[in-house]
Amino acid sequence: MKVAFLGLGVMGYPMAGHLKKAGFEVCVYNRTTAKAEKWAQEFAGKFADTPSEAAKDADLVMMCVGNDDDVRAVAFAAMAGMKAGAILVDHTTASAEVARELYQALSDKGIGFLDAPVSGGQAGAENGQLTVMVGGDEVTYQAAEAVLKSYAKQIKRLGEAGSGQLCKMVNQICIAGIVQGLSEAINFAQKAGLNVADVVEVISKGAAQSWQMENRALTMDKGQYDFGFAVDWMRKDLSIALAEARRNGSTLPLTALVDQFYADVQRLGGSRWDTSSLLVRLQ
Amino acid sequence: MKVAFLGLGVMGYPMAGHLKKAGFEVCVYNRTTAKAEKWAQEFAGKFADTPSEAAKDADLVMMCVGNDDDVRAVAFAAMAGMKAGAILVDHTTASAEVARELYQALSDKGIGFLDAPVSGGQAGAENGQLTVMVGGDEVTYQAAEAVLKSYAKQIKRLGEAGSGQLCKMVNQICIAGIVQGLSEAINFAQKAGLNVADVVEVISKGAAQSWQMENRALTMDKGQYDFGFAVDWMRKDLSIALAEARRNGSTLPLTALVDQFYADVQRLGGSRWDTSSLLVRLQ
Repeated sequence: MKVAFLGLGVMGYPMAGHLKKAGFEVCVYNRTTAKAEKWAQEFAGKFADTPSEAAKDADLVMMCVGNDDDVRAVAFAAMAGMKAGAILVDHTTASAEVARELYQALSDKGIGFLDAPVSGGQAGAENGQLTVMVGGDEVTYQAAEAVLKSYAKQIKRLGEAGSGQLCKMVNQICIAGIVQGLSEAINFAQKAGLNVADVVEVISKGAAQSWQMENRALTMDKGQYDFGFAVDWMRKDLSIALAEARRNGSTLPLTALVDQFYADVQRLGGSRWDTSSLLVRLQ
Repeated sequence: MKVAFLGLGVMGYPMAGHLKKAGFEVCVYNRTTAKAEKWAQEFAGKFADTPSEAAKDADLVMMCVGNDDDVRAVAFAAMAGMKAGAILVDHTTASAEVARELYQALSDKGIGFLDAPVSGGQAGAENGQLTVMVGGDEVTYQAAEAVLKSYAKQIKRLGEAGSGQLCKMVNQICIAGIVQGLSEAINFAQKAGLNVADVVEVISKGAAQSWQMENRALTMDKGQYDFGFAVDWMRKDLSIALAEARRNGSTLPLTALVDQFYADVQRLGGSRWDTSSLLVRLQ
């Protein structure tokens, strides 16, 4: 089976590598060609100078780029080279609207489309342990699932086109509340003179427990914020969720507030710090 | 060893029972004597009409009552009957101030004092699986620890008098953020037409995971809010944390907001609903 991967960022680069290691014939494309060349060398794969060229003759085309505009640009460029019956899988975290728009546009050409944002971060991409949240039709999902397993520990279809993106938004809304609560809790504990490690030990088995507490509380206590997913990217994701909430009529008071708090962190110089840096603006 | 238990609410009643089952000679006191009588019958123990009488000759006196005022009233009443060398353990969630005040007052009489709020709720009290967060001096803690094990799966001393209460505040601050984030996430998922059970399945293994998600998301989705810890009690706990933050200089914007949201829930008739009912005011 021939596959293409478009976009070799911190996520795409190792994901494309897993496809090659799984035995697929892989051709990659990246906006900066040097990186595609480096990838081709490292994994003994091929690279192309345009999305259309990379996608030519591919059965499956994966992409992981920046924002809605990048998704549109790369997807339409790839479409020009894709054959009927092929499938385009978008791993970018983007809006549900762009997913529905591309699903329709590619359907008209006989090409399948899945919106398939991931969670698990850079470490998950490198270890091939991502979670993939998929929207699109069932037949297309069935055809792509086995290939996605090259870099995923968990893959689930949530519903029609856009559902993968909506599920990712739910994920980010949960994280916003957890991290802000944890930041206030750690700051309070520090100012109260408690030992944060002791507190975490005693409260992490009950109703206050979270993945964030288990994996970030001690690094936050030490002021370490270099564990991956950056504040700039979180603001992009929250912006997508807040815009979708305007459409579906849901109310996100805490999410909107935390988005503003992340703006404070950006002003403090933390655009590239990880999401747990919400603590900094309280200190 | 002779022990006393003062305050037979949903927590105290089964906790006192565990002490009796562990083989201690137990005398209980409750403001409404009928309940103390019922307890004495069920567990073949003794009851007294006043805190002082129940505490007489006891080596350890436990209490679990309502708020700071109740703690003061019952503790000072018990103190009148307690012998030098005995220990008073307060399981009420109360302020760190009242803990320090009682620690000092009892020290002056040669009586030990531990502030020891618990988490784990009614189920934890009934199963003897509570977590106990302790403040006080090490010697007193060592003398009481074995007895507290009658109803606890985890006991930890966090520091001097008041530290147990401060740790419980940290716990409640974490919960406030998690539950509000989860409420916004579930409301968003419902309005986006997603299946909440599917979403939880896919996002509960990663960075959005929490005890609340694993134990409450599905019941929240069904609008069930009868799982224990009530909104009125949560507001009491958040009020204590917000007052302490004024003293220690920490900022709790999300916690303060969620406290106001719980006021909305009270206005909607939810004073006795559990803490996950924050979802209701979004719907």
